[in-house]
Amino acid sequence: MQLTSVDKAFELVLTNTLSFGYETIDFQESEGRVLAENITADRDFPPFDRVTMDGIALQGDAYLNGQRLFDIENIQYAGEVQKELINKNSCIEIMTGASLPLGTDSVIRYEDITIADGKTLLKDGLSMFKNIHGKGHDRTMGEVLLPIGHPLKSADLAVLSSTGNENVRVNALPKVAIVTSGDELVAVHETPKAHQIRKSNIYAISSLLKPYAANIQHFHIIDDLKESIDKLSAICQNFDVLVLSGGVSAGKKDYLPEALEAIGVKKLFHKIAQRPGKPMWFGRKENLIAFALPGNPVSSFMCAIRYVLPWLKKSIGINGVEETAILAQDVIFKPTLSYFMQVKLLQVKGVLKAYPFEGSGSGDLANLSLSDAFLELENQDSEVYLAGETYRFWRF
Amino acid sequence: MQLTSVDKAFELVLTNTLSFGYETIDFQESEGRVLAENITADRDFPPFDRVTMDGIALQGDAYLNGQRLFDIENIQYAGEVQKELINKNSCIEIMTGASLPLGTDSVIRYEDITIADGKTLLKDGLSMFKNIHGKGHDRTMGEVLLPIGHPLKSADLAVLSSTGNENVRVNALPKVAIVTSGDELVAVHETPKAHQIRKSNIYAISSLLKPYAANIQHFHIIDDLKESIDKLSAICQNFDVLVLSGGVSAGKKDYLPEALEAIGVKKLFHKIAQRPGKPMWFGRKENLIAFALPGNPVSSFMCAIRYVLPWLKKSIGINGVEETAILAQDVIFKPTLSYFMQVKLLQVKGVLKAYPFEGSGSGDLANLSLSDAFLELENQDSEVYLAGETYRFWRF
Repeated sequence: MQLTSVDKAFELVLTNTLSFGYETIDFQESEGRVLAENITADRDFPPFDRVTMDGIALQGDAYLNGQRLFDIENIQYAGEVQKELINKNSCIEIMTGASLPLGTDSVIRYEDITIADGKTLLKDGLSMFKNIHGKGHDRTMGEVLLPIGHPLKSADLAVLSSTGNENVRVNALPKVAIVTSGDELVAVHETPKAHQIRKSNIYAISSLLKPYAANIQHFHIIDDLKESIDKLSAICQNFDVLVLSGGVSAGKKDYLPEALEAIGVKKLFHKIAQRPGKPMWFGRKENLIAFALPGNPVSSFMCAIRYVLPWLKKSIGINGVEETAILAQDVIFKPTLSYFMQVKLLQVKGVLKAYPFEGSGSGDLANLSLSDAFLELENQDSEVYLAGETYRFWRF
Repeated sequence: MQLTSVDKAFELVLTNTLSFGYETIDFQESEGRVLAENITADRDFPPFDRVTMDGIALQGDAYLNGQRLFDIENIQYAGEVQKELINKNSCIEIMTGASLPLGTDSVIRYEDITIADGKTLLKDGLSMFKNIHGKGHDRTMGEVLLPIGHPLKSADLAVLSSTGNENVRVNALPKVAIVTSGDELVAVHETPKAHQIRKSNIYAISSLLKPYAANIQHFHIIDDLKESIDKLSAICQNFDVLVLSGGVSAGKKDYLPEALEAIGVKKLFHKIAQRPGKPMWFGRKENLIAFALPGNPVSSFMCAIRYVLPWLKKSIGINGVEETAILAQDVIFKPTLSYFMQVKLLQVKGVLKAYPFEGSGSGDLANLSLSDAFLELENQDSEVYLAGETYRFWRF
C-alpha cells in the first residue's frame, strides 16, 4: 500500500478542520479560549488623567516662575471625585491612582519634597508636567483591544474585566469520543492475565486533548467487524471527532478502517511514511472527523501530538507556532520513512539544542516521561542526519 | 528606602517556599501534579514476548536450514492465551500485540510472505529472530518508572494506567487568597464613575495561579487601616498564601504593609530595584506567605509572573527552567533599576530572538495581550543594552 508523506498527511489534516459554533461563557473561565467577538474599550484608558506617584499636584508654571514653598490646600485620594485647586499658588496632596485635580498639571513625588505645618518645600531642578498617565493615553474609547480570533491569555482576563465583559463570546469546543480496540486490553483496575495489558493510550490522549474539547468520552470496541460497525455508527451520532486507537494495521482483526468506511466515513489517507505511527488512518464524513491511530502506545501518542492536536487547535482557532531545534549529535536512520525521534531539549543563550533520547523503541512508554519532545527527522536520501542541522520539534 | 535587588528578592522568595502535604487523587486528574510516591513496574514491560507485526511466527532455524514452505497450523490473536507450535516445521499466523507462541522465535510480516491453501511461502533473504518486543525489554518488574518528585505530563497517565494506578499520591496544592485594595475599584458588572475603574488585576493573577492552587478566593479591602488589619487577620486563618494587590506604596492610604506587620507577618523585603513593580512587599508568618503587589495592573502582573508563580511552582515541586533569548535591537534604559521589558519572541532555526514591544507603559494592560513575555534587562552601569546580548525572559 502506498504510504502518504508526513507533509501530505498533515496538509490533509489541516485542510479538513471543522468549526463548532460559538458560546458565551463567564470571562473567568475564558483563559485558553479564542474570542468570537471584538473586545473594545468602553471608555478611554486611562479613563481620567491618572496620578502615577504619591506626592503633590500643582501648577507647573508656579514652580517654573521660581516659587518653592506651597500651601497644601486639600488632599485627593484614589477613588474620590476629582477635586479642584482653588489658589493656583497652592498645591493638593495626592495619591497614586487618583484623578489629577482640576487646575493642576504636574505631580511631584514625596521623595522630592519636604512637608511641614501644612506647607511643602520643593527642591530645585525638578521636572514639571510629569507623573500623570493622561486620559486616553493608552487606548481611546471604541478602540478594539482584543480582536476576534485572539486566543485569550491570563493577562487578557484583566482587559475583559476592565471593560466590563463579565461574559464573553468564544469559539465553541468539539465533543470528542476516544475509542480503544484490542481484545488484549483490560481496565486499569483489573489485574491483567499473562497475555493481557491494561488500557493506557486513551488516558494519555484524553489528557492531551482535554483543554481543547467540550467533553471527552471513552468507549471500547471488541475485535469484531459487526460490533465495530454498530458501535461506531451509534457513537458518531453524538460526537464531532472520533479518535480511535488500535485496529488499523494489517492484522486479521484490524477492522476499524473497514468499519469506518461502512458507516460512511471516507478515507483521506491510510498509512504514513513515518516511524513510529505508520499505520494511522484518517477520514471524514461531513462534519465528523475520524483519526484512527495505531494501538502501540508511543505511536498513538505521537500521532495525537503530530496530527490530532494541531487539527483540534486549528479547528477552534489556535494557530500552531512552528518550533525548531538544532540537532546536537549525528543520527543514523535509514530511508525511506520520516523518523520522530524522542529528544531532550536544552536551551543555552537563546539557542535550543535537541539531544537524542530514544529509549527502547515504540513500545517504551516510560521513555516519553523523560523526554521533552520528538524531533521530526524528515525522510531524506541520506541515512545520516548531521549535528548542527535544524529540525522541527513537537513538545509534549 | 533601600531597594532590594531583583536577584536578592528572588532568592528570598525561593528560600521561603512552603509545602502543603500530600493527597491521593484520581490518576485521570493528575496531569500537571507532582508525584509523592514512586511508580514502579508491577510486571515486566512488555509483560510477555510481544509480537510487533502482523504475519506469521516460526522457528528461525527451519528457515535458515533452507525451508521456505510452511503449513499454517494455527492462528494467534492479540488478547488470546499463548498458543504453542506443535510441529516445528510449521508456523502460526499471528497478529500485532499477541503473545509470541511457545516454540517460535521469529516473526515475518505479511509483506514478505504469500499465503495460499493453508500454507505460506517465504521469500529468500529474510532476517530471522525479529519483530518481537521481548518480555522485560523496556522495563523489568519492580523498576521505578516515575520517581517521587516527577511532574506528571499527559504521557505519564499512560504509565500510571498501565501499572494499575487508578489513584496516585501527589503533592497537595495551597489555598490562595487574592485580596484587592483601592477605593477607586468597582466590580466588573458595575459602571464606573469618572474617577473609578473596574477591578482587573485579580482576574489575571487568578488565572495565572489557578493550575497550581487547590482553590483561590477573592477579597476586597477598603483603604482603612483598622479594616485592613481585621480582614487580613481573618483571611490568614484559612489560607496558605495571600496575594494582595495595591496599597503598598508611599501613599497616605497605603496601609497594607503596616496591616500585615500588625497581624504578625514579618517583612522580608519591601521595594525592589525594578520597573515596573518597584513597590512590591513580601513577608512571612510561620506557614503563611504574603505577596503584596503594586496596584498598577501591569506591575502586579509582572510581579506575579516573576515572584509569585516561581514560588508557587517550587513549593509544589515544579522546578522552573531558565529560558533566555537574544535581544534583537539596542535598548536604552537608564540605571539604576532592572527593566522588565515586554517583548515579542520569534524563533528561527533554533535561535530565539526578543523584539521590544513596549506599549505605553506600566498602565497599558492591553499591550500584555500582544506581547509574549518580558525580557529581564538587569540593572547595569551602562544605559545601553546591546542587540545580540542574551537575557532571561519570562513568558506569559
